[in-house]
Amino acid sequence: MHEGALSRGQMQAWALNRYYYQSHIPRKDAVVLSRSDDQGFRMAWRKRLIDHDGDGNRPGGVEKWLKLVEATGLPRIQAVRGDGILPATRYAVDAYVQFVSTRPHLQAVASSLTELFSHKLIALRMDRLREFYPWMASGLDYFTGRLTQAPEDADFALAWVVKHARTREEQDAAHAALRAKCDILWAMLDALFFAYVNPAWPPPGAFHPNHVDL
Amino acid sequence: MHEGALSRGQMQAWALNRYYYQSHIPRKDAVVLSRSDDQGFRMAWRKRLIDHDGDGNRPGGVEKWLKLVEATGLPRIQAVRGDGILPATRYAVDAYVQFVSTRPHLQAVASSLTELFSHKLIALRMDRLREFYPWMASGLDYFTGRLTQAPEDADFALAWVVKHARTREEQDAAHAALRAKCDILWAMLDALFFAYVNPAWPPPGAFHPNHVDL
Repeated sequence: MHEGALSRGQMQAWALNRYYYQSHIPRKDAVVLSRSDDQGFRMAWRKRLIDHDGDGNRPGGVEKWLKLVEATGLPRIQAVRGDGILPATRYAVDAYVQFVSTRPHLQAVASSLTELFSHKLIALRMDRLREFYPWMASGLDYFTGRLTQAPEDADFALAWVVKHARTREEQDAAHAALRAKCDILWAMLDALFFAYVNPAWPPPGAFHPNHVDL
Repeated sequence: MHEGALSRGQMQAWALNRYYYQSHIPRKDAVVLSRSDDQGFRMAWRKRLIDHDGDGNRPGGVEKWLKLVEATGLPRIQAVRGDGILPATRYAVDAYVQFVSTRPHLQAVASSLTELFSHKLIALRMDRLREFYPWMASGLDYFTGRLTQAPEDADFALAWVVKHARTREEQDAAHAALRAKCDILWAMLDALFFAYVNPAWPPPGAFHPNHVDL
């Protein structure tokens, strides 16, 4: 993606599949919130619900991702319905929600820490998308918002985990939770690569890029 | 309570036990929110998190209930820790959170509809508390807030349930969910009555009113 090597169809597949992830983030965060008996934590975490679902006046991240989908040329309804998303995308996202629902709360919070590393990546990605995929320029609001939201969220979560992971076992569990989240993101990307890059074998029922575009 | 027949110790037991319920309401609502794939629903339901946890400037319902606890003469830390609450209170509240976590989303929403009947009750209760328990007057902010919040919440939830309970089975299930919630509230009150009114046998470990007050 960052080298400009992807077709429009491949970008569509990415935006479409990633929408399933994005649309589950506020639900994931509500689960994390629901599991805390600490009102200060709940109030801080509520910011994420607003960031992703919007506040009625300003659109949230989910809506902005739909704009990104539309910028690739796909209709928003296809993303909303999840038509043609990879089963592997669904499994990985559902595993994430399941993880934060069932693991100790500390691990649920720690699993969000992948955002510690997203600031540089987002800035780079916006540059490269503008350079190589100028037809997507109208869909980049999501990233603009995350440039400030993600570091705020990650800083809060990191401080919270550092404070509450007191024993070596808790620290190891927090570390493992962050790795588990990396596994989830990685699995989503591998499935996309397999289906749409190499060997480019989408499974039955999955989105097929228009071959003219490829 | 509405006839002025309760001692200060009995009012303390009520406020203390009910705090366990109140403090779980924003967590219960976050569970309900987390289970919806409808962004409009999630945004509307988020109001409840703000109403109960506060917004950083204005205190929420949980904090206001602590003021009520303090107005009865108990220290807030006792409520926050749940020291001396009845096991039956804990079981009932936990059953409510479990209910909204595991039942179909429609039933989770329908279980909140007990608030349809709370407006008149709250208005009456405020009158009677002011009349018979004037020493509690500084703790009634919770009820003032709920006078407007509860009907708004109930109206939204009722309209939502009416719209989404399409089959007879769904309608029966919504009705059963409301009854299940009534059972939960009823069980909490019966346990309080048994422990602190008649026969007034608090179980081991439970709060004991000061006998001078009784």
